[in-house]
Amino acid sequence: MEENHYTLTVKCYDELGLVYRITKILFEHHLNVLTNSEYVDRESNMFFMRSEFFSNIDPKQLETLLLSVLPTGAVVNMFPKKKKPIVILATKEYHCLGDLLIRYEGKDIQAEILAVISNHPTLEEMVTRFKIPFHYISHENKERNLQEREILECIQMYKPEYIILAKYMRILSSQFVESYKHKIINIHHSFLPAFIGASPYKQAYTRGVKIIGATAHFVTESLDDGPIIYQSTIPVNHTHSAEDMAKLGRDIEKLVLAKSLELVLDNQVMINGNKTVIL
Amino acid sequence: MEENHYTLTVKCYDELGLVYRITKILFEHHLNVLTNSEYVDRESNMFFMRSEFFSNIDPKQLETLLLSVLPTGAVVNMFPKKKKPIVILATKEYHCLGDLLIRYEGKDIQAEILAVISNHPTLEEMVTRFKIPFHYISHENKERNLQEREILECIQMYKPEYIILAKYMRILSSQFVESYKHKIINIHHSFLPAFIGASPYKQAYTRGVKIIGATAHFVTESLDDGPIIYQSTIPVNHTHSAEDMAKLGRDIEKLVLAKSLELVLDNQVMINGNKTVIL
Amino acid sequence: MEENHYTLTVKCYDELGLVYRITKILFEHHLNVLTNSEYVDRESNMFFMRSEFFSNIDPKQLETLLLSVLPTGAVVNMFPKKKKPIVILATKEYHCLGDLLIRYEGKDIQAEILAVISNHPTLEEMVTRFKIPFHYISHENKERNLQEREILECIQMYKPEYIILAKYMRILSSQFVESYKHKIINIHHSFLPAFIGASPYKQAYTRGVKIIGATAHFVTESLDDGPIIYQSTIPVNHTHSAEDMAKLGRDIEKLVLAKSLELVLDNQVMINGNKTVIL
Amino acid sequence: MEENHYTLTVKCYDELGLVYRITKILFEHHLNVLTNSEYVDRESNMFFMRSEFFSNIDPKQLETLLLSVLPTGAVVNMFPKKKKPIVILATKEYHCLGDLLIRYEGKDIQAEILAVISNHPTLEEMVTRFKIPFHYISHENKERNLQEREILECIQMYKPEYIILAKYMRILSSQFVESYKHKIINIHHSFLPAFIGASPYKQAYTRGVKIIGATAHFVTESLDDGPIIYQSTIPVNHTHSAEDMAKLGRDIEKLVLAKSLELVLDNQVMINGNKTVIL
Repeated sequence: MEENHYTLTVKCYDELGLVYRITKILFEHHLNVLTNSEYVDRESNMFFMRSEFFSNIDPKQLETLLLSVLPTGAVVNMFPKKKKPIVILATKEYHCLGDLLIRYEGKDIQAEILAVISNHPTLEEMVTRFKIPFHYISHENKERNLQEREILECIQMYKPEYIILAKYMRILSSQFVESYKHKIINIHHSFLPAFIGASPYKQAYTRGVKIIGATAHFVTESLDDGPIIYQSTIPVNHTHSAEDMAKLGRDIEKLVLAKSLELVLDNQVMINGNKTVIL
Repeated sequence: MEENHYTLTVKCYDELGLVYRITKILFEHHLNVLTNSEYVDRESNMFFMRSEFFSNIDPKQLETLLLSVLPTGAVVNMFPKKKKPIVILATKEYHCLGDLLIRYEGKDIQAEILAVISNHPTLEEMVTRFKIPFHYISHENKERNLQEREILECIQMYKPEYIILAKYMRILSSQFVESYKHKIINIHHSFLPAFIGASPYKQAYTRGVKIIGATAHFVTESLDDGPIIYQSTIPVNHTHSAEDMAKLGRDIEKLVLAKSLELVLDNQVMINGNKTVIL
Repeated sequence: MEENHYTLTVKCYDELGLVYRITKILFEHHLNVLTNSEYVDRESNMFFMRSEFFSNIDPKQLETLLLSVLPTGAVVNMFPKKKKPIVILATKEYHCLGDLLIRYEGKDIQAEILAVISNHPTLEEMVTRFKIPFHYISHENKERNLQEREILECIQMYKPEYIILAKYMRILSSQFVESYKHKIINIHHSFLPAFIGASPYKQAYTRGVKIIGATAHFVTESLDDGPIIYQSTIPVNHTHSAEDMAKLGRDIEKLVLAKSLELVLDNQVMINGNKTVIL
Repeated sequence: MEENHYTLTVKCYDELGLVYRITKILFEHHLNVLTNSEYVDRESNMFFMRSEFFSNIDPKQLETLLLSVLPTGAVVNMFPKKKKPIVILATKEYHCLGDLLIRYEGKDIQAEILAVISNHPTLEEMVTRFKIPFHYISHENKERNLQEREILECIQMYKPEYIILAKYMRILSSQFVESYKHKIINIHHSFLPAFIGASPYKQAYTRGVKIIGATAHFVTESLDDGPIIYQSTIPVNHTHSAEDMAKLGRDIEKLVLAKSLELVLDNQVMINGNKTVIL
């Protein structure tokens, strides 16, 4: 944590003079603004702002001050510059999880990885090498609800701020998703909304597309339909089988997941209905 | 036309020794092969080959010779290196049509543009400046079938090898499509199969995607579902309205259409079921 | 021109409270800010801001008001939302110039193209079709200075705000460049600083690179070394000759030039030493 | 290793009928060709071919047979489908090495990583977790030649087929390079030939480029000038410091290195003077 380094985010209905009102308070407290971005969505009439600065003022006090000059319903957050605790869910694939572990090892990610949970034991050896707790919670011969409750209990033990689905290949129930609203990030192996659901590379191969992609999004009740954080695509051609596409796709899946996580951890991602605003 | 420069394409069921049999004939006729590509689709067990060479032999005779050593049902074509005649259909948008006209003017396209047909008069002035016939065939106050028949008659007058839909915003009937099977190329303003049908940029905006794209494909009976020739994508973000996306999209639409046309005109595109093989 | 729609740009040394001071004035005049971006370059300690709003206030008066609260040496500009006059210089190539003409015809560019000047007659027919004056000013059998003076006189007749070098293949003298400082935009056919100077595609081919690119930049005294506005690259491979690369390159050259021009015409490009800030 | 699966590569001066002569031999031995690619470089008049097939014939015998029908000086290789032994050199950075380790762990790379050698102890812990020998060979207080000899002796112990410089930040001597000609792969953190030598991100920042890149190439005597295997670029902007660019760059460095390694390990990369041919 860099001492006194804060990120302020503001979300409220738009009105004349919002930037002026906010920067007036920052100025009156002699805060040295490092970066500042605003956006107004004309459709929803919502105002979004993100600002980084050094501050010796109590963050709660600053939030209160800012709320006092903003429209009713405004959401104001002061995030200290420190690592956010996360828990990762995975199944059997190495690439996304491994990529996060290497970034973690190289101190290249603003997260504290508290634990990895998987419905398969495959990744246990790799994870424990990095001295991170690994929980194998099988779904076999078990009611769906029961396995999910076990996962939930395990997660609650760690109190993470975000849950990362690093190729966790099971669908979460609405209740689960609701209890971590806009706190669960999934990597889907297609350029959504193309190829929703199972086997997107098989679908891509069958359709004969010339690009494949990956999408990181917040998980919502509706499958693969939550707010999109980041997407990327790469070219493929007729020589690529569905397996080749899956192999090629692994390289963008891991980058798209890592990139989206970086944006979220840096408090750059704000929710606007079913979309994201990246400031 | 470069004298004696031919492109040979072969499509047939795969068997042991096809390349050997074909290159034996080319060798025995002392043909100097410039480029050579083959592909076998393991799923359909189809063999595809494309070869460029200089030849003084009668092309029909060479086709016959090659057919004699290939499996039953083989399709063999000898294309001379010359411009293919095309007719372009458009509606009101300048960018795709204009891009093709400039390439044509700069001799940067292997096509002879015989005519442009539109259901609006908007583009007439631009087209006629390039000394290309423009036919305005309105769809207003007219039965759908009638307008299509008028277009078909107009096209038949010109005997084009390919029909290019450069943002022609009306759906063609199955009969029309069948009469020019794999000869009609459309540019769709999305990365198919995402956002099939009308207003893809509006759909993209509403979904909050972070990439938009364009797809050039052969037109088949099923809407936006024909064999894909070429696709490309570009990043967008939350600041872009549907109109902004449409504006940004124009630049990839025109490139994707031009690129796919170039591939087709150069005899690099072969049909494999509902997919393309690009050699 | 959209009535009363202005873009404000501010450039000055950074100090505490600049955004507050500026937005205070905008707020006190009830200006409805549409978009707002700021950037502080820590290295040069320069503050940059760009803001769009509707205003009924005299723009000169607003500039004066803003200057009164900003550090000495601040540069403040109020740009009305209207087309900027430009003159295009070209040589023989169709693609960049043609692309700008089609955008112009489709009202897809915020510029008034006053004239095209070339040292070859090749493009005259195309330009005049678009009812734009074409001036052929040959460099043959003529002293370099004389030809340049003729071009300069021709340009001065039109009083353009920007001069666009759309593949103008001659080097301009320092005097010429100085007289239009940061007002001349060039498209260079490489990803600068690779392949400065003549025949970049030949250089790229010889080096065996796997990507080629294009760079739009402001012209300065030092060859191909001015502030870069926009760059893009595309993959190439061993099958591409220098001529193939030139052909492929045309498609990014025209896009990079058009994109950079769009940014400049929209007052998004500010100069920061030998770099650009794009807001 | 997949039993009997071979990759054949051929390199020789071009002559009429080479494909015919080669495929004749393959056909006569009833070899079922999976993929086949050829390329002729008109400039050097060299013919390149790569073919994959299943074969029960002794590979040395097939090589001899093929050489008997090819021009003098032809190079013919039969590579069995098996993992190639490699040694990795690194310095302090985690990302490229870590990415290779994760691919190795996930069996996503056709190499046997025999050892990692570094001139710093930083990466030792990570490497040994993957049960791979780590050799710390410091360059401090040591003559340059001595340290290099120590590294060379260490490498010779392992007899690797390729040496991978995964951000090894020291320059190798000509003698070292010569003793592993076209067997050492380096990842350089710029889109070569831009920003040769030290601190390319600092150079990129200073120049104000809008794209940065990475280049994987074979190491030759001349610094950063060997045959390029693969390159990629990503956009940057004025908000990125040299450190930001370095951070962003890490993601393409690791992908470019991994991609180039995959091509080399799959025998797809052939040398053509100071260029590569990728079949």
